[in-house]
Amino acid sequence: MQDKQYLMMPGPTPVPPSVYAAMSRPVGGHRTDEFARMHKRIVEKLKRVFQTQNDIFVITNSGTGALETAIANTVSARDKVLALITGNFGERFANIARAYGAELIEVNFGYGKDVDLSVVEEKLRQNPDVKVVLATQNETSTGVCNDIAGIGALVARTPALLLVDGVSGVGAIEIKVDEWGIDMLCTASQKAFMLPPGLAMVSVSDKAWGVVNNNKAPRFYFSIPAFKKVLDKWNTAYTPNVTLFYGLEAALEMMEAEGLDNVYTRHALLARATRAAVKALGLRLLAEERYASNALTAVWGPEGIAADDLRKIIKNKYGVIFAGGQGEVKGKIIRIAHMGFADKMDVIIAVSALEMALAEAGYPVQLGAGIAAAQEVFLGRV
Amino acid sequence: MQDKQYLMMPGPTPVPPSVYAAMSRPVGGHRTDEFARMHKRIVEKLKRVFQTQNDIFVITNSGTGALETAIANTVSARDKVLALITGNFGERFANIARAYGAELIEVNFGYGKDVDLSVVEEKLRQNPDVKVVLATQNETSTGVCNDIAGIGALVARTPALLLVDGVSGVGAIEIKVDEWGIDMLCTASQKAFMLPPGLAMVSVSDKAWGVVNNNKAPRFYFSIPAFKKVLDKWNTAYTPNVTLFYGLEAALEMMEAEGLDNVYTRHALLARATRAAVKALGLRLLAEERYASNALTAVWGPEGIAADDLRKIIKNKYGVIFAGGQGEVKGKIIRIAHMGFADKMDVIIAVSALEMALAEAGYPVQLGAGIAAAQEVFLGRV
Repeated sequence: MQDKQYLMMPGPTPVPPSVYAAMSRPVGGHRTDEFARMHKRIVEKLKRVFQTQNDIFVITNSGTGALETAIANTVSARDKVLALITGNFGERFANIARAYGAELIEVNFGYGKDVDLSVVEEKLRQNPDVKVVLATQNETSTGVCNDIAGIGALVARTPALLLVDGVSGVGAIEIKVDEWGIDMLCTASQKAFMLPPGLAMVSVSDKAWGVVNNNKAPRFYFSIPAFKKVLDKWNTAYTPNVTLFYGLEAALEMMEAEGLDNVYTRHALLARATRAAVKALGLRLLAEERYASNALTAVWGPEGIAADDLRKIIKNKYGVIFAGGQGEVKGKIIRIAHMGFADKMDVIIAVSALEMALAEAGYPVQLGAGIAAAQEVFLGRV
Repeated sequence: MQDKQYLMMPGPTPVPPSVYAAMSRPVGGHRTDEFARMHKRIVEKLKRVFQTQNDIFVITNSGTGALETAIANTVSARDKVLALITGNFGERFANIARAYGAELIEVNFGYGKDVDLSVVEEKLRQNPDVKVVLATQNETSTGVCNDIAGIGALVARTPALLLVDGVSGVGAIEIKVDEWGIDMLCTASQKAFMLPPGLAMVSVSDKAWGVVNNNKAPRFYFSIPAFKKVLDKWNTAYTPNVTLFYGLEAALEMMEAEGLDNVYTRHALLARATRAAVKALGLRLLAEERYASNALTAVWGPEGIAADDLRKIIKNKYGVIFAGGQGEVKGKIIRIAHMGFADKMDVIIAVSALEMALAEAGYPVQLGAGIAAAQEVFLGRV
């Protein structure tokens, strides 16, 4: 039916009516006291999400722009960069460093695996001249959540900076920038922040500032020193997406009204229910449960049925939009997002659509079995 | 979670984003060519929904205002009115006639029953001086769909007018004003027309005009002759809700894009799936299936559990809003609306919330059993 669409891909994610209402306000000027006051309020709220005292810059680009901002301000040609890769977005982070002329040490842990800390420790010992370490909090392509606290503890002992891609994780999965020693955390609006795409956020630690201020790579739109120069007046270096700032404030207010702990607990609950349902249907999860993401669940397509054919049935018959595989697992997996503006009934919709599509595709599914497993989780029985 | 609300009561019903978008247009003047052209387009589309060549008046009030418009223009003090009552809204229609001084012949068929045509035939024979017959297409309080074609055929043989309350039926369940001999059909915006409350629509047959033009009851805002006087210029007698007119045009465009036959088939499918699910959970339906509504399903509360307590769990834990009982069945039933902007996943949400709430209330429910029954219907297996 027209207008009946259930967006369950890992970004863009659904936007709550309250956020749309805030965004429908007539656009105001960005060189005004009103904007400055809002900008300050937003950054104060973001600091509570990031758990940091560091500066946070809200910049007008998408997640990849946030990653490039981090690289452009810390990596110069021939700098040694250790890239910890667990999927497509880990590869992208490395590719951005490569574009800036980095000498890359890439460690690929494999699709569906998480970062092995002992390997990180060894690589750092073998390469004491590593300037920057790249890690992914929540690998969107596989639904793997890496141990950023563990990686942070290892990098903190070295002169290297830790740059973290938190694009699909921040706001869904707790992160502690200061306690875990994250020098730059990058995230974006269109995932757990419940906004349309167009804004990114980057934090910068004291340790990072020395490098940022002296980096040699060309930078202008992505220049953090340019952002910093105007931040004391709560100004932005270039024209910001004012409308998304309105939305971001509303979204952060929603998150605070729910309570950040409750937001994280909700994501954990939805993830557990989704995994329980998938297993009850006899399907296999891509990631091991001990490091499975709370924001997204990746599922192997069933034996003999193309994952993308299944996604097509799910979209065309039920209006539910899942993501497919990327990179090595292209065409082989289905990715179900449960991040941001998502609650129990979204999991119910996802599982029900999956059950019916499996039945149509000839998979021997017991209708309702996945739903029952999710319901058991919601009822607190398992 | 804030903003996660699933409105499944019989009006207001959910409004599609396309309709909200149309309604967000800046309000225009109603004494303009633009308004007149839009008014004409809307009435042409409504005539296809009503299946009539009669005039249709779009008036600014809610469903009860539409019913009063019909009464105020056809009933004067001491006129004999036959009221065919199958629930709360049938009673309301009679009460409006009573307020206008009618001499009422009330036939109450009982909550959960439909109109018995043999009784109608007998009452009309016994009372050849009946001026107006009141009937309800879809009795919102019980989920009963009456045989308007049958009633119409009986009334057509007499001088009486047939006034039909189609508030919660029109747009969800097919109705044929001309073929079935409906002299005035009343409906409203906030049910199957997928709009917020505030507009009502009334059609007037040739047979009705003689009565309407000469009725003695006091009327001003509800005066159909006043509406008619300006209709040739596609004007309205008094200030219309212009914003809802924008929404109504968008909603009618959505219905025509889907195809009216498909709209009715969709409602029938959702009703069948809902009934199958309810039965699979061991609950009893209020209405017999042969005359059960395609727009709304009324379900008896389970033995030993107060229906309103169950509704409270469903609302507070899952954000799903069902209606309760009215009149004789107050506190005893749950009413699940599946009308207007409703599709398969809405039934899945409704049933899943019901299953979990039953489990919490201690009812021996097999989780997923209702969902499976609904899915079987959606998959075309039953």
